[in-house]
Formats: sequence, structure tokens, C-alpha cells
Amino acid sequence: MPTESEIINSIRSRLQRASGVVVGVGDDAAVLKPRESKDLLACCDLMVEGVHFRRDWCEPTLIGRKALAINLSDIAAMGGTPRYAMISVAIMAGSPASFVESLFDGIFELADQTGVAVIGGDTSSSPGPLFIDVSVIGDCEVGKAVTRAGARPGDQVFVTGTLGASALGLRLLERGARLKDPGNNQSCEEALLKHLIPSPRLKTGSSIGQAGLATAMIDISDGLSTDLCHLAEESDCGAIIDAGSIPIAQSVLDYITEDPATDPLDLALNGGEEYELLFATDPGNLARISEVGLQTGVRMTRIGEMIERKQLILRFGDEQRPLQVKGYEHLV
Amino acid sequence: MPTESEIINSIRSRLQRASGVVVGVGDDAAVLKPRESKDLLACCDLMVEGVHFRRDWCEPTLIGRKALAINLSDIAAMGGTPRYAMISVAIMAGSPASFVESLFDGIFELADQTGVAVIGGDTSSSPGPLFIDVSVIGDCEVGKAVTRAGARPGDQVFVTGTLGASALGLRLLERGARLKDPGNNQSCEEALLKHLIPSPRLKTGSSIGQAGLATAMIDISDGLSTDLCHLAEESDCGAIIDAGSIPIAQSVLDYITEDPATDPLDLALNGGEEYELLFATDPGNLARISEVGLQTGVRMTRIGEMIERKQLILRFGDEQRPLQVKGYEHLV
Repeated sequence: MPTESEIINSIRSRLQRASGVVVGVGDDAAVLKPRESKDLLACCDLMVEGVHFRRDWCEPTLIGRKALAINLSDIAAMGGTPRYAMISVAIMAGSPASFVESLFDGIFELADQTGVAVIGGDTSSSPGPLFIDVSVIGDCEVGKAVTRAGARPGDQVFVTGTLGASALGLRLLERGARLKDPGNNQSCEEALLKHLIPSPRLKTGSSIGQAGLATAMIDISDGLSTDLCHLAEESDCGAIIDAGSIPIAQSVLDYITEDPATDPLDLALNGGEEYELLFATDPGNLARISEVGLQTGVRMTRIGEMIERKQLILRFGDEQRPLQVKGYEHLV
Repeated sequence: MPTESEIINSIRSRLQRASGVVVGVGDDAAVLKPRESKDLLACCDLMVEGVHFRRDWCEPTLIGRKALAINLSDIAAMGGTPRYAMISVAIMAGSPASFVESLFDGIFELADQTGVAVIGGDTSSSPGPLFIDVSVIGDCEVGKAVTRAGARPGDQVFVTGTLGASALGLRLLERGARLKDPGNNQSCEEALLKHLIPSPRLKTGSSIGQAGLATAMIDISDGLSTDLCHLAEESDCGAIIDAGSIPIAQSVLDYITEDPATDPLDLALNGGEEYELLFATDPGNLARISEVGLQTGVRMTRIGEMIERKQLILRFGDEQRPLQVKGYEHLV
């Protein structure tokens, strides 16, 4: 296992000069110049081996990449832009240097793609599993951060992309499927990709935020039902969702021909780690929402409406049922 | 073990309104209003059970407290003021709610004492050890952050407080000593306290930073010899240290009467986790440094001088020897 200084030196050698960073990795703290007229956003998300992922599921590159991705998704869900990241890792004693390098390859690849500067972090050995905690600092126009708390009855509920594939990917991984296995059909490969290489909706999130198009927004990390529940509770209202309008991923729809016991709607409603955006918007904004979707190349689907009654309802045609909130369970 | 929502709700119920925090714990990210004319500081530090601490050494309160303290020390070492903290914890499966509460008690106690607002975090179960990663955001006057890199030959080297007690405390813990054991003599208790309840030099650090009194500064987390080496390397010079002037903790001096095999100078030079400040200053500043020491109630000791030759030298009277840099080793 490489020493902490070796890891830091390797990281420092890869850093690019980033705007706003006065002092980056290697001092007691990073020094940043805040942009004028911006509010700051800050979040952190932890990934623990055996809880959030298994090491035999994929290359360490993808583990590193995902640890950053899920944080970027949180900033997108505030309508902001991620700027800086700090990475803390505890690495299993005895890991080869190549493991650590590969982990950071994935982090740097996504950081470079998204214009995020790695400004610090900490490393340790771990007598147990691999831990990765990433903190991200971002910003948004003053007063334009989109919380979970502003939705009002009558607001329309939208979701980006399609749902269910990440949960399917997780199920397939647990059954032994792996990326790029020659035996994979297209739906299996797509579901694995969605789970292992999530694409946070950065442009869509920041466009919605800047244009003030959402009254409340959250990213779907715990599953549509759970995250809708968070959004409704914080906004002090309820929501009614049209089951038929939920955009179920094609890979999920294809998969049921192989395994008819799979319930696509259940995966779409309760599958976590989608990293799609769920938001509420004034009914007057529908055209502008479509425009943002077209501009950022992301499907926008209206799936329901916020209501005054503090309940979550799932509508099938004329029939209404309470929407069960099934919290997404990690491995442990 | 409490669920993530139970932990978040318990944390939210304890939060105080803090200036600059627009949105705190409970959304996808926190929203902060940066202070005008300030540079931002950001750092994170990781504590892993079995590497940085053992659970049977002390109450969980002290583990939580220390996880925050070591981060505050990093901000102090930049000459800044800590403002916000995010806490990520992975808690051993099956831990009782009281363990988690006690851990956060320690974090909140120190946060409240130091005016730091807890603005976010993440929780997970851990199939292995306890893992705590804390990120802190602070600030300082524009351009006044003190890095490790500005020391010049001729600058005087200072250290706050006294050295060696934390390493002695660690050694005693490993031999089975525990805080408040009726069998402890005063030196043992003091050494345990220094190791388990470090007091980051917040006021001293920010005073030095604001007054522009240090050309370079670092906190002693890896040991005086290692951290002096970091400071000298980043400043592209060397240093000469007077062995006789190193302020060895009284508990260490007392302890050698019990265990004559202990070398107090070795503990003071190479013991880590002191969280004292080591800094270089222009020789013209000596009086002002003493003043900061008096104002903040912290002993300031001049221990040597930066030199042009890129070597670390330890002086005993007229004799000079190379200063061995012995990296502080954690448990694993």
C-alpha cells in the first residue's frame, strides 16, 4: 500500500490549475476565492464497501467515479454548479498502489469532465472495508438555491431521465452479472451502466436553478417514493402521481420478458441510486421546462401534481391508492 | 442501531441558528452566505477505528470531539477561523442509539464552544470499524491565509504550548491506562487528556493570521520533526532547532522518574497529534508574538531558525546533528 505522502504527491502531480483555487492539495487547508454574488453550497456523501458497493462488482475506477458523482448530483439538486471536491479514503491494508491510483483515476476523470477542482482530502489505511467520503463545495446565484421545501399545491411534479434501471443493475450485480460480460444482452448492460456509472444531471439542475423554474427539487438517491415523500414533507403538502406517466427505463421493460416476476413499476417507484432530478414547478413553466430538457438533452416527464392534503397518492387511471414509501435499502 | 432519518432528526433538533447558514442539515446540500472580503478555507480529516483510535480507550463523546478538533486545528494552522462542519460517520452495525448520540454530543459540544455550525453530513452502517470524516469550511481575511510555503532563511521558528504529552498519552493508553482511573497520577492523567481531548489553538492561529505575523505555519499532527520537515520543504529552505529550547510537557518530564527508559526529547520531537502550532516569523515580530501568546493564554516558545541550507539540524549547545525525521506512525 502506498504511503500517504506518495498518494498526495501522485494527486498533486495530476492537478490542473483551477480558477478560484489559491492553495490546493498539500497544505493544512485549501484556500479558495469565493465568486462574487454567489451563495455557497456544501454537501458530503459516504460510500462504504459492503454497504454501498462491493469491490468485485467493478473496477476501482468506477467506485471512485461514483463517489464523486453522487455528490455532484446533490449540488445539481440544489440548482447549483459544483466547483471543488475533497476526498477522504480509508484503504484496505495491503492494497497495491495500482488500486489506489485506479480509484483516483475515476475521481479525476469525472472531476475534469465537470470542471470540478480536487482541493484536498485525507487518506488512511482501513483495518476493514474501503471507505470513501467526498465533500463538494459549489455555488449558485444569490437566493436561487432550490431546496426541498418550496413546493405548493398545484405545482406540477417532474422527473428527469428514466427510472428503475439502477435498481435492476443492482439486482443483476447481486446475481453475478458484470459489466462488459460477453453474455450480457443490451438491457443487462444498460442497467449495469446506470447503476455503476451514474450521470448526475448537472446542466439540467443548474439550468433549472438559474432560471428559477423549480419550487422544490431533490435528486433520487433513495427511490422515487422515498424522495417524493421527503420533498412533500419538507414542503408541507402531498402529491398525486400518475402511475402510467412514470418514465420506466427501456432496459427494465425489456428485462421483464426474461424475468416476468419483476415488477417494473416497483423498480421505478422504489429503486434507489437513480441520480435523476425530481422537482416541482409552477404550471405556467411547462414550456420552459421542455426547453431546458431539449437544451440539456435530458428527457423531462411530468408525473403528477402537488396537493394540499398531506398524502402521497398513486393514480392508475380513475383509481387512486396510497403510494407506499419503501425506503431504499443498502446491502447492510 | 438508529436509522439515518432518526440520526438526522436528532441532529436537526439540536442545531442552533447560525449566521451565514441559509439552509442547514436536511437538504441535498447546505446553502451558505459567504462573508464579504474573505477567502474561504476548506479541509477534511479522517479518523478510523483501529488506526487513529480504539473504542475502548474512551467514551464516544471524546472520539466525536477529537474528530472535529483535528479539523479545527487545520483551519487554525492557516491563520483562519472555522465556521461550518460536515460530519460523515459509518457506525458499526448493531451500535445502540446511545453510542451515536454520545458521539454527536462530543461533536456538538466542541462545535458550540467554538462557534462552528454543523451544516451537513452523511451516515451509514459499517460492516467493519467506526469511521468518522469531518470537513470544515472556514475563512480568513483576503490574502491572509498562512501556508506552509512562505518561510525564509533567518525567520525564527516558534511552537505553541508544550510537546510530547500526546505521544505519552498514546503510549499509556496502549498499556491499558484510562482517563479518570483512580490509580492515575497527575502526569498520567495530563498525558491522557492531551491525547484524547486536544485543544486546537484557534484564537492563537487566527490572531497570528490576522496580524500577518507568520511567514509559514502548520499544526503538529505528525510530530515536530515531520511537520518541520513539511514546512521547510514547502518553503524551500532548512531549519536549525535548539534541542534545549524545545518546550517539553511537564507530564513527560515527570513521567521519566517512573520510566527512565523514556526519552522526553524523542517524544517531543517525534510524537504526533499534538495539535500545537509550529510557525516561522520575521525576527522583527518577536515582541508581537509574545503579545499574542499573552492575549490568548498560550505559551510561545522560540525553538530555532530557518536556514538557507536545505537541511534540518538539531543543536545541542555547540554540537550540531542532523535532525532525524521520524514520521508519526498510527496504530496500523
